[in-house]
Amino acid sequence: MKAGYFQFKPAFCKPEKNIEKINTALKDKDFDLIVLPELANSGYFFSSFDEVESASEEIPSGKFCKALRVISDEKNCAVIAGICEKAGDKYYNSSVLIMPGKDIITYRKIHLFYEEKKWFAESDTPFSVHSFSNKRVNDVKIGMMICFDWIFPESARTLALKGAQIICHPSNLVLPYCQDAMVTRALENRVFTITANRTGIDTNREGKELSFTGMSEIVNPKGKILHRGTIEDDEVVILDINPEEALDKNVNSFNNAFTDRKEEFYFK
Amino acid sequence: MKAGYFQFKPAFCKPEKNIEKINTALKDKDFDLIVLPELANSGYFFSSFDEVESASEEIPSGKFCKALRVISDEKNCAVIAGICEKAGDKYYNSSVLIMPGKDIITYRKIHLFYEEKKWFAESDTPFSVHSFSNKRVNDVKIGMMICFDWIFPESARTLALKGAQIICHPSNLVLPYCQDAMVTRALENRVFTITANRTGIDTNREGKELSFTGMSEIVNPKGKILHRGTIEDDEVVILDINPEEALDKNVNSFNNAFTDRKEEFYFK
Repeated sequence: MKAGYFQFKPAFCKPEKNIEKINTALKDKDFDLIVLPELANSGYFFSSFDEVESASEEIPSGKFCKALRVISDEKNCAVIAGICEKAGDKYYNSSVLIMPGKDIITYRKIHLFYEEKKWFAESDTPFSVHSFSNKRVNDVKIGMMICFDWIFPESARTLALKGAQIICHPSNLVLPYCQDAMVTRALENRVFTITANRTGIDTNREGKELSFTGMSEIVNPKGKILHRGTIEDDEVVILDINPEEALDKNVNSFNNAFTDRKEEFYFK
Repeated sequence: MKAGYFQFKPAFCKPEKNIEKINTALKDKDFDLIVLPELANSGYFFSSFDEVESASEEIPSGKFCKALRVISDEKNCAVIAGICEKAGDKYYNSSVLIMPGKDIITYRKIHLFYEEKKWFAESDTPFSVHSFSNKRVNDVKIGMMICFDWIFPESARTLALKGAQIICHPSNLVLPYCQDAMVTRALENRVFTITANRTGIDTNREGKELSFTGMSEIVNPKGKILHRGTIEDDEVVILDINPEEALDKNVNSFNNAFTDRKEEFYFK
């Protein structure tokens, strides 16, 4: 199947501009699965709830969701994107999974990073895995996590144990460790990982800057980096991958990443 | 405290020779904690139970344990070493922790790798953490795991949750992934890791070869590689580390590697 990411710098609090950017970048591309960065509608570095409010939207009625729905329908593909979500009087750092003919699936980030705890509510959605089929692929299991979830090994492990073949990982990474760590996440769980990071710098109202590390990444179930992106460029990267490789949990003829787990010895 | 490893190539099925090598290498060194490779008394690539028997010994009465006890007493230090253990009619791939004035502590490898499953019995010892004190350090918590335990994130996680500040990791690594993955293990758990790998090639009776990857490694709780050894050389590496750094589980002023864990969302 054709799977990949669009790495870019979301315009801060300008959802329409981000929709336009996404539409332009993906218009002539062919893919079955695309992953966009965390908070792809809004940008990242908020200074007030007014800013969060101005960039957020409800799922599924918001314009960002509707634009992604059009892409999904037209290309008969799965779209995963980070989104600044409004729900009642709360905001969530979420990602949506949009597939043709299906309701939008929402995952709300379980491990909030740094000042995100000021703006976003605690997650009430589990780590979840969803089946995707189209003309080219049948019943591929897609797992959802967001950015800082990576540092807790339980995140990817939970998704893998629930059957994920491809972990889709919208990110806004500011630390330099995750890209290397995702090799370990892929390898220990024998899954594909697609980390869609953003680029550029966000400056908040007080003039503080956050610089994002780009280098979006696709890793295979043997821990091979199939592609690592640039630090600064906008880029759409689509690779041919075989998700069935993630069904084989054998490390060698004696070892299996799942059946060799010795739960009786863990966490006591 | 002064902590490190001795990386070398154990002579196959020649425990006396390995004892001599260890004694010679450590004689003039000063340290509080030293980690030796997996199966440091025996070598690795067995072809028969006769070979395993010839290289194994009982804990604590065997000559390898007695030699390590002398080092521990003379230097007032903790010694951790991989050992081919005989217990009744079983053999274990174990590591021992030897501290002055204390009974020897044995950990039997929980995740056996490849043909080890032919020779060694399943572990009946938990992941365990033990307090070490001497004239320089007070109550440093040492966690024990062996080689392939690394690929299961639950191993290091369990040790860290049990309070380990330094994960001591005797290894005989043949795959090239572990050294990078241990950076993630240190970082996700905010602990020191000391991976003592072996070097060289073992050839079994059928002429099959296994080549070991060296590059023993010490990583700090922020995921910084303090030292990575050579691929082929014998080397004793001792660093000054402050184990109290591993008591601080804060990632930043908003995030903590332990208290941010959301167990209610894991593994269901």
